[in-house]
Amino acid sequence: MATDIRLSSLKEPVDVAEYLFIRLHQMGVRSIHGVPGDFNLVALDYVDKCDLKWVGNANELNAGYAADGYARIKGMSALVTTFGVGELSAINALAGAYSEHIPIVHIVGTPNTTSQKDGMLLHHTLGNGNFNVFADMSREISVVLARLNDPAEIANQIDHALQQCWIQSRPVYISLPTDMVQKKIGGERLKTPIDTAFPENDEAKEDYVTAVVLKYLMAAKNPIILVDSCAIRHRVLDEVHDLVDKTGLTVYVTPMGKGAVNETHANYGGVYAGDGSQKEVKKGVEASDLILTIGAIKSDFNTAGFSYKTSQLNTIDFHSDRIEVRYSSYPGVHMRGVLRKIINQIDLSKLSAVARPKVINEIEENTDNSETITQAWIWPRVGDFLKENDVIITETGTANFGIWETKFPAGVTAISQVLWGSIGYSVGATQGAALAVADSSASPSKPDRRTILFVGDGSLQLTVQEISTMVRLNLHPIIFVICNAGYTIERFIHGMDAAYNNIPTWRHTDLPSVFGAQPGQSRSYQVRTKAEVEKLFHDKEFCAADVLQIVELYVPKKDAPRALVLTAEASARVNSKV
Amino acid sequence: MATDIRLSSLKEPVDVAEYLFIRLHQMGVRSIHGVPGDFNLVALDYVDKCDLKWVGNANELNAGYAADGYARIKGMSALVTTFGVGELSAINALAGAYSEHIPIVHIVGTPNTTSQKDGMLLHHTLGNGNFNVFADMSREISVVLARLNDPAEIANQIDHALQQCWIQSRPVYISLPTDMVQKKIGGERLKTPIDTAFPENDEAKEDYVTAVVLKYLMAAKNPIILVDSCAIRHRVLDEVHDLVDKTGLTVYVTPMGKGAVNETHANYGGVYAGDGSQKEVKKGVEASDLILTIGAIKSDFNTAGFSYKTSQLNTIDFHSDRIEVRYSSYPGVHMRGVLRKIINQIDLSKLSAVARPKVINEIEENTDNSETITQAWIWPRVGDFLKENDVIITETGTANFGIWETKFPAGVTAISQVLWGSIGYSVGATQGAALAVADSSASPSKPDRRTILFVGDGSLQLTVQEISTMVRLNLHPIIFVICNAGYTIERFIHGMDAAYNNIPTWRHTDLPSVFGAQPGQSRSYQVRTKAEVEKLFHDKEFCAADVLQIVELYVPKKDAPRALVLTAEASARVNSKV
Repeated sequence: MATDIRLSSLKEPVDVAEYLFIRLHQMGVRSIHGVPGDFNLVALDYVDKCDLKWVGNANELNAGYAADGYARIKGMSALVTTFGVGELSAINALAGAYSEHIPIVHIVGTPNTTSQKDGMLLHHTLGNGNFNVFADMSREISVVLARLNDPAEIANQIDHALQQCWIQSRPVYISLPTDMVQKKIGGERLKTPIDTAFPENDEAKEDYVTAVVLKYLMAAKNPIILVDSCAIRHRVLDEVHDLVDKTGLTVYVTPMGKGAVNETHANYGGVYAGDGSQKEVKKGVEASDLILTIGAIKSDFNTAGFSYKTSQLNTIDFHSDRIEVRYSSYPGVHMRGVLRKIINQIDLSKLSAVARPKVINEIEENTDNSETITQAWIWPRVGDFLKENDVIITETGTANFGIWETKFPAGVTAISQVLWGSIGYSVGATQGAALAVADSSASPSKPDRRTILFVGDGSLQLTVQEISTMVRLNLHPIIFVICNAGYTIERFIHGMDAAYNNIPTWRHTDLPSVFGAQPGQSRSYQVRTKAEVEKLFHDKEFCAADVLQIVELYVPKKDAPRALVLTAEASARVNSKV
Repeated sequence: MATDIRLSSLKEPVDVAEYLFIRLHQMGVRSIHGVPGDFNLVALDYVDKCDLKWVGNANELNAGYAADGYARIKGMSALVTTFGVGELSAINALAGAYSEHIPIVHIVGTPNTTSQKDGMLLHHTLGNGNFNVFADMSREISVVLARLNDPAEIANQIDHALQQCWIQSRPVYISLPTDMVQKKIGGERLKTPIDTAFPENDEAKEDYVTAVVLKYLMAAKNPIILVDSCAIRHRVLDEVHDLVDKTGLTVYVTPMGKGAVNETHANYGGVYAGDGSQKEVKKGVEASDLILTIGAIKSDFNTAGFSYKTSQLNTIDFHSDRIEVRYSSYPGVHMRGVLRKIINQIDLSKLSAVARPKVINEIEENTDNSETITQAWIWPRVGDFLKENDVIITETGTANFGIWETKFPAGVTAISQVLWGSIGYSVGATQGAALAVADSSASPSKPDRRTILFVGDGSLQLTVQEISTMVRLNLHPIIFVICNAGYTIERFIHGMDAAYNNIPTWRHTDLPSVFGAQPGQSRSYQVRTKAEVEKLFHDKEFCAADVLQIVELYVPKKDAPRALVLTAEASARVNSKV
């Protein structure tokens, strides 16, 4: 991961901001998200100097969402905000990143340390001299909270924060007072990259757990693998793929695990989410006598409302901080080492597993013959539209549930926020993901992968101005706006016809030009029938995605994916439980 | 303040949500701001029933800003968000309201108490079973944090929260779990309005302080009054006006106090902000041997970078929680009682004050003859455009400093966020203020007062979608977008030509129609020369403000009001102080 960014020309000592940004560059970050504010301006002067790009988002919440999307593609991201007003505007995005295990380095420009000590009555304060309130708010959603107040400590603090951000795959908070930005610190240590190797498990413990898992695995007649979100976040996909290839077991994913496994692989079984699954998938998983779940987050929306019909007696859960075998817990063991040992030690000749019927991985055919685009029709159809290596982002709402029924080509990355579920997230995330793709492409103006967003007309309204940032950065996402006149996911939970679930009607097709797109820099479409969708999906210019494109996709207001209907009913029940 | 909303038809007992909304109605609230979310939907069913309107903002931060603007006109406001994602998106607005002393009742719909006790793995959580994290984040920015978990306590909790919100003039936080919304509680107490009388001072103490103040006031040769923000927030303007009228003393305002005093009053002296003041004003204040400051917040941006040239030896500070006479502090005394006693007891015949020259309250004439609209030219000019009782909102940036040079007609209310200074605030606040005006007007579709916003093109981008809410509510603000190609306030602090202070260029004039305005429901303008401004300011249709209007007002990128230049220089010095 280390690069030699400017190390050769590095004069001893370096400025604090320079140190920080060089470290970020070494960690793979190429663009810095955020909004300028007077307490971070001097630091921003170092972005260019350190071979990084400044994004300049339309607001801080969007910037936070974008940093989240960027990190999901690029491995890590950085967000710069200003004291109080800026950091608090972004805090929902950071809480989401904490919840969903996304490594974002949040850098907050804060007032001069002397002003803080003196309790000066500055703008962006509560007027009570307390300069700790805002950092304290971030304490429970950051794995490290580093306040850079003492130059002698700063290099250590930065290295520790970035290391933990990577290893724990969660946000860290760094406050950078204006008078620290240009303090000189030793630059020599920049020549040694931050150690991002994951701590090894205690070997005896790891061996013990491996033996326990192998005992159950060898005895099982019908074992399967179920891959979930934390397998992606905690970077054990190599182990997952090797395990599947070596054992030949059928592998399923959860909604949050979608994209973790090549869905064209012969062993891929489909998306399991309890009662929200396709019939064959449900049968396949629930008939298993040993489910190896990898990185599970068994949350309500990831399980179609806690509708798993599996038994913990038939389950082994692999986590980043523990392994759970049936009801036995083995804390302090990371799944990576155990998975690798299983792969290395398993004696395939002694497996009890019986041959399964070939996996049927087909979405039930949609037999509806009307012209109307329905949720049941569009999502399987999207599968054929997707290309290998596309990045597909879905918003909390109908899209997050519909995508369960979309079969991905190989190499597709899926981005969504199934656990945190903050509406509006996907628009920011799309900016970040598309930029990460550009930053990773040989020619940024001709990105290697398409970035495709499905967002509802309600959710889009929260964060719409980030389209402007996409225009400014000349990114080429395809934005499908699901036009169904409001918050459909909420209608299915409560208030099907309630006015509070309605939204104003916008002219989405004009958004790019209003937000600064020049003629030729964007294209807009409207599709209202299945035939129009087919035509669009076969339009070569559209599929090439060489400019920003926005599509109004009209579906009925009260139409939702099957899995959403189930999950919403379950949510309503839990909400009203007495 | 009490109304008889539904009291006659009130069946015993009432549902918790009904109790809460009836109380809000009694406190003068008529519209509820917020965004629906699954943990608040059932509560929203009660909004209509309790004769309130649901706003339905485009996002929660904007909703919070709008609630702030609404409260500044209507005396109090309410904001409804959902657990985690919603409340955190709004938290910057609430922190701002705490900082600036604005009474907002923040109601957060939270999961079922049973789900919380069981630590269920629900969406909108951190996935760690901790349901207290988000409420804890609001603790330091709320004067009351009420968690409605026990029906027996709920009426008390609500009454206490609303009372303190009003009396302390700051936000309160109320969490309302889904299973509490429809719990039955006694409704009888709704017949007794919440006691919003301010606690009386201890009489002996109040008399003592009054005597001390009077002693200094009688002896002073050249006393003046300086009115600041907390005089508005803590509702002592009647006392201020009576004091001015009775004593005939010259009265000045600070930037945050602008609008507190009738600027056409014979005793009005102008805006004092240290070196940022007009020459005559500066001389008038700094020559005084006794400054009675009322509700002062001597923050950096309110004092042109701490540039007061006044002495604490010549100052008496009146606050809501103490009086400070020179260096003596009298804690626990509210200014209201003391001011009233001074008015009642002062013996004008014994005042030592000498006659002052008649107040010169003229802004220096602008002698620039170019066609270009400059900041120096436009702000005094706006004074003639304003009408009595207009509501004028200015954004943190050039507008917040330019407005110092605008002389208001009688009855004008000024809204800005000089202390908290969160850019984007003014757009949400405009929605809230315009709605509050409509809610207070005999015919809401023909509001009694105009609402006028001045916002920079940079700040607008953060919260632009609230224009959509204005369209939906059919509000008629005039929105001046100061087009100067970016964050000019920041250029003057640091990075005059830095790319990070640039923004993408938008087509502002198309915003209303993109955001849903029908033909005839909005008008758009562009003005690039002084002549065009003059023409617009004399356009009867424009001045009538009968639809939503948006004006692109072009000024040079590197042009800023005099006071901003001074303040920015001071900020840069403080930031870099070693």
